Amino acid sequence: MELWYTEYQTKNLGLTARIKETLFAGESEFQEIAVVDTHEFGRMLVLDGVFQTSIVEEFIYHEMIAHVPLFMHPNPKTVLVIGGGDGGAIREVVKHQSVEVAEMVEIDGLVVEVSKKYLPEISVALNENHPKLRLKIGDGIKHMREVESKYDVIIVDCSDPIGPGEGLFTHAFYQDVYKALKPDGLFVQQTESPFFHQELIKRLNKDISSLFPITSLYLANIPIYPSGLHCFTLGSKKYDPATADISRIPQNLSTRYYNKEIQKSCFALPNFIQDLLK
Amino acid sequence: MELWYTEYQTKNLGLTARIKETLFAGESEFQEIAVVDTHEFGRMLVLDGVFQTSIVEEFIYHEMIAHVPLFMHPNPKTVLVIGGGDGGAIREVVKHQSVEVAEMVEIDGLVVEVSKKYLPEISVALNENHPKLRLKIGDGIKHMREVESKYDVIIVDCSDPIGPGEGLFTHAFYQDVYKALKPDGLFVQQTESPFFHQELIKRLNKDISSLFPITSLYLANIPIYPSGLHCFTLGSKKYDPATADISRIPQNLSTRYYNKEIQKSCFALPNFIQDLLK
Repeated sequence: MELWYTEYQTKNLGLTARIKETLFAGESEFQEIAVVDTHEFGRMLVLDGVFQTSIVEEFIYHEMIAHVPLFMHPNPKTVLVIGGGDGGAIREVVKHQSVEVAEMVEIDGLVVEVSKKYLPEISVALNENHPKLRLKIGDGIKHMREVESKYDVIIVDCSDPIGPGEGLFTHAFYQDVYKALKPDGLFVQQTESPFFHQELIKRLNKDISSLFPITSLYLANIPIYPSGLHCFTLGSKKYDPATADISRIPQNLSTRYYNKEIQKSCFALPNFIQDLLK
Repeated sequence: MELWYTEYQTKNLGLTARIKETLFAGESEFQEIAVVDTHEFGRMLVLDGVFQTSIVEEFIYHEMIAHVPLFMHPNPKTVLVIGGGDGGAIREVVKHQSVEVAEMVEIDGLVVEVSKKYLPEISVALNENHPKLRLKIGDGIKHMREVESKYDVIIVDCSDPIGPGEGLFTHAFYQDVYKALKPDGLFVQQTESPFFHQELIKRLNKDISSLFPITSLYLANIPIYPSGLHCFTLGSKKYDPATADISRIPQNLSTRYYNKEIQKSCFALPNFIQDLLK
């Protein structure tokens, strides 16, 4: 018997993956959580039916959401990850020598527990309780309201703007992000596909650029996300990606996608995406 | 009733698209040919069950297979497209002022006829019988054997290395390509996904670099192809992509993906792809 799971990425398009085994299926206060072992992508985390990450290609998303902002900042010491319950973003953050404190605020404790058990390659910094890590299970939106001028870099590693992630895609949230950052701080957020979420990307770009003097969008190829091309939007108070000092990037940084050339090239936008941001 | 077509990109992974209508389904001497109208990607050309191109995102593939090699060459006058029966690559080639002759050798006349009828946005240069166009229905491998020192740029716009495209992925073919190029000529070929066709990419890179002093790989995001990330491999006798004069690229070039920054950034390779080529 062949088992297949299909994620309907839109109501008219699906990615369907052959499954070896369902390792976990449960429900938290916030969402449905599953881990399926697939033939093509290995173990995959599925939240509310949407593929979030997989053992085979997770490195791309996690390296790109962490290293691009962290190497734009000349000396990031205090970093916050909002969401990122699988631990992949934090795993990359703690690779930075300058980082002293890597806070993480994830709303759904069950995502953390499931990731620690079934996705240890991704959750390694959570499993070993890395000395730089400060993990809090709680509401990132509320946390952001309460802090001021604390972080060098904030990474918003959220799911889609429906369900628990919805409030992370609002102007009010970005105001709180601005407040929570130090005077030279910057933040990044995953902002979906430039093919299938154009209105969202335009709105966020407008919201973020109304608050931050420097707003940029960069791209990475994520095979399991709709269209395979994924956006990340940056808001920065001071540092510009165009003038980032890539000589800071150590030769021996352990990455499989990210490198010095990618730090520059990921900001080169196809015309149709440039047009979206006009 | 909902109609869906699923392409099994591998035996364990599929892309499934909701169909409005099947506009054409037939069979040529070489392959099964279909055109389906989909909700998400508009009309799509399907050969032997594999999505080839779509109205919504075809511009990416066609701009990237044509403009990257053509702007690496300082003065391309005589250009050959092998395959490319939908006409998309030729549509881009004839945009170049320097190009005097744009030859095309497509093995399957029915692909040309079907594209002219059902995909006129893509096949426009075929439909209007563009003055630079020389279209020949025939075997590209045989054609390549017969010509010598004729072309500035050759574009191998083929389908997958099974069926009619198979002989275009061989060392013998690349020897003939080398012979068919002028002493400063260069060629490009679509070379599949860096996730799902790693052995093929390694082999082709080895074959091409055994013949050409400069071999490079570049990337573009093609949403309908496996993994959404697609490789193009270049073999060049003289011109290096790293030193291409991008000031030649006119500001008013009519493209939706390609631009000066993309000409440079598409050669920035993630570490895992660099490792493949070592």
